[in-house]
Amino acid sequence: MKILMLNGPNLNLLGRREPAVYGQTTLHELESGLADYAERLGIKLDSLQSNSESELIDAIHKAADFYDGIILNAGALTHYSYALRDAISATAMPVIEVHISNIYSREHFRHTSVISPVCIGQITGLGIHGYYLALDYFKRTIGD
Amino acid sequence: MKILMLNGPNLNLLGRREPAVYGQTTLHELESGLADYAERLGIKLDSLQSNSESELIDAIHKAADFYDGIILNAGALTHYSYALRDAISATAMPVIEVHISNIYSREHFRHTSVISPVCIGQITGLGIHGYYLALDYFKRTIGD
Amino acid sequence: MKILMLNGPNLNLLGRREPAVYGQTTLHELESGLADYAERLGIKLDSLQSNSESELIDAIHKAADFYDGIILNAGALTHYSYALRDAISATAMPVIEVHISNIYSREHFRHTSVISPVCIGQITGLGIHGYYLALDYFKRTIGD
Amino acid sequence: MKILMLNGPNLNLLGRREPAVYGQTTLHELESGLADYAERLGIKLDSLQSNSESELIDAIHKAADFYDGIILNAGALTHYSYALRDAISATAMPVIEVHISNIYSREHFRHTSVISPVCIGQITGLGIHGYYLALDYFKRTIGD
Amino acid sequence: MKILMLNGPNLNLLGRREPAVYGQTTLHELESGLADYAERLGIKLDSLQSNSESELIDAIHKAADFYDGIILNAGALTHYSYALRDAISATAMPVIEVHISNIYSREHFRHTSVISPVCIGQITGLGIHGYYLALDYFKRTIGD
Amino acid sequence: MKILMLNGPNLNLLGRREPAVYGQTTLHELESGLADYAERLGIKLDSLQSNSESELIDAIHKAADFYDGIILNAGALTHYSYALRDAISATAMPVIEVHISNIYSREHFRHTSVISPVCIGQITGLGIHGYYLALDYFKRTIGD
Amino acid sequence: MKILMLNGPNLNLLGRREPAVYGQTTLHELESGLADYAERLGIKLDSLQSNSESELIDAIHKAADFYDGIILNAGALTHYSYALRDAISATAMPVIEVHISNIYSREHFRHTSVISPVCIGQITGLGIHGYYLALDYFKRTIGD
Amino acid sequence: MKILMLNGPNLNLLGRREPAVYGQTTLHELESGLADYAERLGIKLDSLQSNSESELIDAIHKAADFYDGIILNAGALTHYSYALRDAISATAMPVIEVHISNIYSREHFRHTSVISPVCIGQITGLGIHGYYLALDYFKRTIGD
Amino acid sequence: MKILMLNGPNLNLLGRREPAVYGQTTLHELESGLADYAERLGIKLDSLQSNSESELIDAIHKAADFYDGIILNAGALTHYSYALRDAISATAMPVIEVHISNIYSREHFRHTSVISPVCIGQITGLGIHGYYLALDYFKRTIGD
Amino acid sequence: MKILMLNGPNLNLLGRREPAVYGQTTLHELESGLADYAERLGIKLDSLQSNSESELIDAIHKAADFYDGIILNAGALTHYSYALRDAISATAMPVIEVHISNIYSREHFRHTSVISPVCIGQITGLGIHGYYLALDYFKRTIGD
Amino acid sequence: MKILMLNGPNLNLLGRREPAVYGQTTLHELESGLADYAERLGIKLDSLQSNSESELIDAIHKAADFYDGIILNAGALTHYSYALRDAISATAMPVIEVHISNIYSREHFRHTSVISPVCIGQITGLGIHGYYLALDYFKRTIGD
Amino acid sequence: MKILMLNGPNLNLLGRREPAVYGQTTLHELESGLADYAERLGIKLDSLQSNSESELIDAIHKAADFYDGIILNAGALTHYSYALRDAISATAMPVIEVHISNIYSREHFRHTSVISPVCIGQITGLGIHGYYLALDYFKRTIGD
Repeated sequence: MKILMLNGPNLNLLGRREPAVYGQTTLHELESGLADYAERLGIKLDSLQSNSESELIDAIHKAADFYDGIILNAGALTHYSYALRDAISATAMPVIEVHISNIYSREHFRHTSVISPVCIGQITGLGIHGYYLALDYFKRTIGD
Repeated sequence: MKILMLNGPNLNLLGRREPAVYGQTTLHELESGLADYAERLGIKLDSLQSNSESELIDAIHKAADFYDGIILNAGALTHYSYALRDAISATAMPVIEVHISNIYSREHFRHTSVISPVCIGQITGLGIHGYYLALDYFKRTIGD
Repeated sequence: MKILMLNGPNLNLLGRREPAVYGQTTLHELESGLADYAERLGIKLDSLQSNSESELIDAIHKAADFYDGIILNAGALTHYSYALRDAISATAMPVIEVHISNIYSREHFRHTSVISPVCIGQITGLGIHGYYLALDYFKRTIGD
Repeated sequence: MKILMLNGPNLNLLGRREPAVYGQTTLHELESGLADYAERLGIKLDSLQSNSESELIDAIHKAADFYDGIILNAGALTHYSYALRDAISATAMPVIEVHISNIYSREHFRHTSVISPVCIGQITGLGIHGYYLALDYFKRTIGD
Repeated sequence: MKILMLNGPNLNLLGRREPAVYGQTTLHELESGLADYAERLGIKLDSLQSNSESELIDAIHKAADFYDGIILNAGALTHYSYALRDAISATAMPVIEVHISNIYSREHFRHTSVISPVCIGQITGLGIHGYYLALDYFKRTIGD
Repeated sequence: MKILMLNGPNLNLLGRREPAVYGQTTLHELESGLADYAERLGIKLDSLQSNSESELIDAIHKAADFYDGIILNAGALTHYSYALRDAISATAMPVIEVHISNIYSREHFRHTSVISPVCIGQITGLGIHGYYLALDYFKRTIGD
Repeated sequence: MKILMLNGPNLNLLGRREPAVYGQTTLHELESGLADYAERLGIKLDSLQSNSESELIDAIHKAADFYDGIILNAGALTHYSYALRDAISATAMPVIEVHISNIYSREHFRHTSVISPVCIGQITGLGIHGYYLALDYFKRTIGD
Repeated sequence: MKILMLNGPNLNLLGRREPAVYGQTTLHELESGLADYAERLGIKLDSLQSNSESELIDAIHKAADFYDGIILNAGALTHYSYALRDAISATAMPVIEVHISNIYSREHFRHTSVISPVCIGQITGLGIHGYYLALDYFKRTIGD
Repeated sequence: MKILMLNGPNLNLLGRREPAVYGQTTLHELESGLADYAERLGIKLDSLQSNSESELIDAIHKAADFYDGIILNAGALTHYSYALRDAISATAMPVIEVHISNIYSREHFRHTSVISPVCIGQITGLGIHGYYLALDYFKRTIGD
Repeated sequence: MKILMLNGPNLNLLGRREPAVYGQTTLHELESGLADYAERLGIKLDSLQSNSESELIDAIHKAADFYDGIILNAGALTHYSYALRDAISATAMPVIEVHISNIYSREHFRHTSVISPVCIGQITGLGIHGYYLALDYFKRTIGD
Repeated sequence: MKILMLNGPNLNLLGRREPAVYGQTTLHELESGLADYAERLGIKLDSLQSNSESELIDAIHKAADFYDGIILNAGALTHYSYALRDAISATAMPVIEVHISNIYSREHFRHTSVISPVCIGQITGLGIHGYYLALDYFKRTIGD
Repeated sequence: MKILMLNGPNLNLLGRREPAVYGQTTLHELESGLADYAERLGIKLDSLQSNSESELIDAIHKAADFYDGIILNAGALTHYSYALRDAISATAMPVIEVHISNIYSREHFRHTSVISPVCIGQITGLGIHGYYLALDYFKRTIGD
């Protein structure tokens, strides 16, 4: 089984930006830690972070041929990128939406995700554990 | 570590009600399956289902003295029970909100959870796996 | 044919509460009058009134095994109880929503019924005759 | 007792238009069937169908002198014709609003009736039985 | 100078419909009284009442060639007939909107007039005197 | 008969401010012209202009003892001064609201008058003729 | 192939009303020009203009038996006539909605079409060319 | 004079739950302190706390026969329980709504009370003093 | 202890204006009655009524140096005067908002107080007793 | 005459993504088919597809110097890209907005186009024929 | 060049009121500091502060004859005083709106300025430097 | 002191696009003029313009290490780019938002800036002088 982890705008700052909100793990640590964990589960994990909506869309388009699922933290694009939403609904693969912080207890504009209706489900507020749980879910539900 | 799983109105019908939406596992199967899994993780899991808002509130009040965390699927009370919300915010223990179906791709009234701002986080749309992932999260974050 | 009549919060005060709005027939008179009428139609009618949302939910759950239809006046729960709505949609039996007064010519909050989308239909504003007409409807449409 | 049944725009297509929604009875069959039923109740029933808002208004104006009540299915005018509403509120006779389908489980614009606040009551979602129940109501409440 | 008075839906009931709101003068008395008053001012007044939106639109279209101004009480069409609005804006002649009752102290839906932005002005709440004042205005501003 | 004309904020600039909207008559010319006209009708007219909400409120309070009616152009206070509204509803005398321009074809915030529900009626868009017509109305309806 | 062109309220004024917005071609010129063009495409085109909602509804009802498609410019009825919408959805024939001006860059109320959800598609803002393009579309997609 | 004090969901936690918001007095201390104070005023005070909407409704129904007034802090039910509202409006006795914290300076959902329109009045933000002031009010206004 | 009672627009009419709503006590009687009561409590009470927003703001500014608390009935300014709100929040002294009538059961615009978020609390609907209870509160909570 | 066809995010998937909605023609087939058709009309057509908002903006900026018109299907950017809108309004060339599916009968967020007010017009719901009709329009209106 | 600085309600408390928000400079220090700075720029600066809407309106009216521009911080009147807005739009002189704090990161009601559409521009959030920058702007753009 | 000026989408067209709105200075002239002015103030100014959201985000990320402040005109991204907002709030450096035109007197969608809550302040409507004033501000407040 191959899974793609996509992180969107500003997540390159993970561990440095507002640690009280996002924690102290850097993006690099997240990516390597999750890859290790995936390997133990027998999953091949690739990772991509981009601040660009179009690069994320391109990655989702290409993923359809190479991966069994996507773990997606779209950052603030979550709240307005209908183009990202269309990219997800155009693929037939399962996408799990992850948010590190509890978006429902922050600013009002973060309460609405325009992509959640086209994802399988959402894990929010559980810190970087959310990524690990998403992997667990894929392990539980997709044969390899 | 002791965890309490609370299921709200109509979840006693699990496995019989709209299986296309909620799956075919019955509440009893969920409770015993999750208890077994918890045991393997070294967690003591108790379960309660009630169609009554006040019974759920009472359970949350009492849980503060006996449990380390709550896994809560409040059913449709999710969308209007501010009393349940107050019960959660009045406790100092971690509560994870779980929804079996993806509430964001269903009717509009299901898109708003009045309790999510006072929970740690939310797992939604991942079927009954959501409960298992919630347990995983407690295992990862709370010492026993 | 067996039909269950359910009356929700405050309908135990029927005949005593605001008679200008709700008429002078008491709940007891309504229940016995309707049972007599049902008997003449060859229908067995049972009745339950409760001020408790969970008791009404429980009654709907159990009704699925014993009745052919439900006549439901949910009182003010009509306007916010999504849990009641879920209980109805989880059953496969026909439910007719009845309101004694014309809810559309009263306060604004009474104009919205959160349960009507999952009922067969609604009879409103025709006084306690509404219950009788609901019985007539079941007589017309369900074989005994 | 004399009752007038008024059907509004597009109801001339009854039985031919979207039978899954509106059933297979034609307008003519409805009118003659209802007239027969009325006769058995000792009621004289007249019927009019029109696609024109002004013809319906005229009919309501004239009805005040000749009828004891009106059964009105205003079709889509239900949702915006304040002129029809004014015509009803200008008469002193009882008007019952009937809808064949459950307007509350269809498109959002059908959830609001601008005429219901000035009618006695509403019967909705019970198919063409709704017209019969309206007659029953008049029989129960108006002396002949 | 020639002026056309147009009265819309339900105004044929003037004097008979809700006299507490609309007064006791009948439409016929209004039309003849106003014509007399007009004559004294040296104005030729014609009158038309219709319950039909299209007849009012036709009348406005034709008025452009024969009249110097229109006094229009569009009844409840005031609140939704954008077609009537377009008919007015398509003419180059002055239109004064009159309402007998104070539409701003009645039901909420009467607070919005979709035609007022394309009329010269509005006289509301002054009873049938409003029509007389509209005539006075034309006398003051248009040469004959 | 004694009538008080009240003009609110910025109307002291009449004739100088945006003449395309408000015309070229100055406040002084309006006040003296209207007083002359009133005299011919046998009416005693007093006038007051103020940019101060509280002075207008005071004037309305005092008017109750000395005048038979008020002609009020409250300027922009029309759109938010609930204090002015309360002053009007506290008096038992008739108040007619006048606006020189058609407030319904200008900016959106001008479409709502918080005082119109407590006035007898409104004359809007007819230029300074509106004040004259208001006098005409008082002449027609109040004995002297 | 037979096509029906329907034009709604005020379109009889085409070429005379606000030419800056609607152009200088009259309705008669549009109808004959389009008929000529249709003939060259091997299409029989009939035309009807009416200011009456009910006449348009009647025409749509009858069209189902005689035409292969409808080109509809409903004028201002576009924005509120749910009865027209129901008439369209009741027919099984293709309807193309045409607007001469760009309704999305005009007044706010013109931004919503209540009929577009039940039409095949919409051509707006391309002047009377829109009607010609609609014919082109029928030529491309319907066999004759 | 007999007064009933009703406290709703989560108020059993008084003194323990968020003391910064609700103070340090426990429910038991409040109830006994207030009973003492009542006794000094010559008032018999009974108290009930429940987390159950239906128990509160039942208590209000029964109170009508035994008490002269109710002091009600409905907790979070304040914001959505129309059933509680109906229970209050069905009684003929005076009810005073009390809130310990200033609900208008907290979360948005706490700004609306669905029961206040059917209570005599409201005391909010004055801590547990609010209950004492409510007693004072009954002492001042109701003869014993 | 020194307390300032401030009454806003139109409250000079107390006892004369709409006595059904506001009671029959005049402002003078309220001020002297409350001063007597204060004296008995060992409180020095000063009173000011003004129809002017700026005079009320000035009074609040000055009060900070001379008083221990303010009892404020801002009249209709309650609903829109953000300037008054800013004046209150700029002082460090406790302000209690009083309304004689139950503002939550009157017109919709009276349901929102823009000043309540910056006051300690609110007493509403208890007639002029509300002022007395506010004094009681100060007596209970502020040392003298 | 030279025309530029721009297709936005996810349209590279045309023919493969949700063919029930978007049809089976691929983007390549659309581009070559339309180029052939353009050639027959004597029009030079260039095409660009991009998932990047900024590339589309750049293309529009450059087009002003090389093309006579633009055919634009902005994909989901249609619904939120005010930057694209500004790019269009900054050019003086005609832009026609095309949508393959009927955006008005799909999800609510697709009902609003933020770019339509600055385009000449819109063709929606007519499948890929919409692009051909847009070319027809340019042929009809722009000299070559 | 002569410039008038106007400060509205509560700004007399500058330096004393909520210094964390508004800084520690007093109004007097601001006025004299700014006058000195103006003098160095060759500008004559006069200053006025008032808590009264009408005094600010009067000042704006008179300024038209004596000043080349106005620097206006209207305090909380910014958010509701349409009368102030009308006063500004009635003058032909340039007005710059200044806010000391960033009104867009404070309470929601502060996000809307009813006067900004009629000012040249706005400087917000830059502390009392905003006033200095406004002077700089006048120096740059108005000849002396 | 080093400052970065960032200009967003379509600002490369400055001086050529809608000069009535944006003036006639080109972007190049603005950048060099401002750099000169900065030099005179002892400030090193760098400039970047991009039509790409992600390039602007990248620039803000990098700026944190090299600059003392940012002057940002985000163009239309101002109104929807929450990703840009997050990039700003993730940096600890001061950002001033500049708009050339008065965004509050233009289209409604321009009235809301999603980035202003995380900027220090905003200068709007003062033409390209706004950029100069922003530099002045940095000179006044940041030591070099």
